[in-house]
Amino acid sequence: MALPTRVTLWEAGPRDGLQNEPGVVSTEVKVELIDRLVDCGVTHIEATSFVSPKWVPQMGDHEAVMAQMKRRPGVTYQVLTPNMKGYEGARAAGAEAIGVFAAASESFSKKNINCSIEESIERFRPVVEAAKRDGVKVRGFVSVVVGCPFEGDIAPEQTAKVTKQLYDLGCDDIGLGDTIGVGTPAKVKRMIEACAKLVPLEKLGGHFHDTYGQALANTLAALECGLARHDASVAGLGGCPYAPGATGNVATEDVVYMLDGMEIETGIDLKKLVQTAWWISDRLGRPPASRVARALKSKCL
Amino acid sequence: MALPTRVTLWEAGPRDGLQNEPGVVSTEVKVELIDRLVDCGVTHIEATSFVSPKWVPQMGDHEAVMAQMKRRPGVTYQVLTPNMKGYEGARAAGAEAIGVFAAASESFSKKNINCSIEESIERFRPVVEAAKRDGVKVRGFVSVVVGCPFEGDIAPEQTAKVTKQLYDLGCDDIGLGDTIGVGTPAKVKRMIEACAKLVPLEKLGGHFHDTYGQALANTLAALECGLARHDASVAGLGGCPYAPGATGNVATEDVVYMLDGMEIETGIDLKKLVQTAWWISDRLGRPPASRVARALKSKCL
Repeated sequence: MALPTRVTLWEAGPRDGLQNEPGVVSTEVKVELIDRLVDCGVTHIEATSFVSPKWVPQMGDHEAVMAQMKRRPGVTYQVLTPNMKGYEGARAAGAEAIGVFAAASESFSKKNINCSIEESIERFRPVVEAAKRDGVKVRGFVSVVVGCPFEGDIAPEQTAKVTKQLYDLGCDDIGLGDTIGVGTPAKVKRMIEACAKLVPLEKLGGHFHDTYGQALANTLAALECGLARHDASVAGLGGCPYAPGATGNVATEDVVYMLDGMEIETGIDLKKLVQTAWWISDRLGRPPASRVARALKSKCL
Repeated sequence: MALPTRVTLWEAGPRDGLQNEPGVVSTEVKVELIDRLVDCGVTHIEATSFVSPKWVPQMGDHEAVMAQMKRRPGVTYQVLTPNMKGYEGARAAGAEAIGVFAAASESFSKKNINCSIEESIERFRPVVEAAKRDGVKVRGFVSVVVGCPFEGDIAPEQTAKVTKQLYDLGCDDIGLGDTIGVGTPAKVKRMIEACAKLVPLEKLGGHFHDTYGQALANTLAALECGLARHDASVAGLGGCPYAPGATGNVATEDVVYMLDGMEIETGIDLKKLVQTAWWISDRLGRPPASRVARALKSKCL
């Protein structure tokens, strides 16, 4: 399989990243982060989440974020909407792309969203139907696609089954998330191959966490399978770089550096991205988790 | 190309690692580190360097290290010997495997070892001849194989030429070092392919630095080219994990984790290795650079 010549990066920092940071970030900083990322050339960005502030207080300012961010034409600003209430709130705030979140393991589904996989799919059904009716784009996510903290290894066929359910539901594309970062290249390839038997490859994307330092190797494995959409998080937001067991997303800078070196186009300006990584990290009071951001600091700032 | 089913890891922590750490480490700690690594299942280890203490004071205790380490049968304890004086010292200390160090770029050769590439090869000639006569194994190293801090990108053919010179000189195998960590998978593959045109593939090994977070992706690329020898450094020794521009070796734990997950045998016990990573890191007063060591701390310690 030839490598893709162009990759679309979905920037997860403002939502998946900041939601999992210990500190609280102001609306003003969130909005500036989104605008700065778009200035770097990011075209797809997860902006916030329309989940009850009772469960996710970090994203409680979703309406204000949606109202204040710039919304550049051609850029997809996606928001998480776990249910109809979230969907309605997102639409009222002008969302044109949403995301729904399932898991590949029953135990993780129960712990994370408090229902079975089947129940989650049924809960998403009216959301996706409403989105289709309203002309709103829908991303599906599958978490713990290769390994689960409660069940251990996940069979590729199990992940493929949930992926197919989200596809059949009407999701425009599906992000395959190694939520706890335990994947290694061979496992990732087997998982993607199983999914690609049931869902067109061009509908699939990778979402790797760097908990065990495997995220870039897994990204390479996914590229070799033909995956041309990848989630990443500026500065590796979503996990403290120094805490044991930190579960940060792969840093966007590290992915862009690799893709630049492989002459795979992303449309993202690495220098501006490194500047943005340091800008948000300064606001969080610690250096970026990204090795590229640290290595290029003096060249870019 | 099928992936190797078994990989030999060359442990670089005690020499390449500790030599590039800011603090001074006692002989006692160095010796214990070597013995602990061998207990983990490491079979090939760079123990010290017979370079003048004037140039490399960190390795000035090479004789004491050689005298005090355990020397388990079947384990290769290799030492760096840049010239005949070093070789004689190493032999007097009982070394049975040595290493010589060339560069793929003229500027790096001049800066690093103060002579041209050609002069370095001529300087190594009597060393390798003596080693062959004495039945001593010889590793050759080529540094800056894909990129040089002074010359930028290095042509694959240039690296291949120097690799061939070391092979012709009589080196038993040659480690290809991305010294400044700027390589990305496509560049690494082109470099290895060029080398494999001139030197048998089974004589080649990979040596990747994680400065830009690319080391594991590059290791995967090298595995896909068939490379079954890889250098790595316990705890990622050789670069502070938090300093901008740190140029640490890839952490052995991260490589072993990936290879374990790919069912590629290394013979190394990951749990013991993580314990060793924390042990040496505690002595250096900071956490390991390895994400695996940090993520598995509570499970292994």
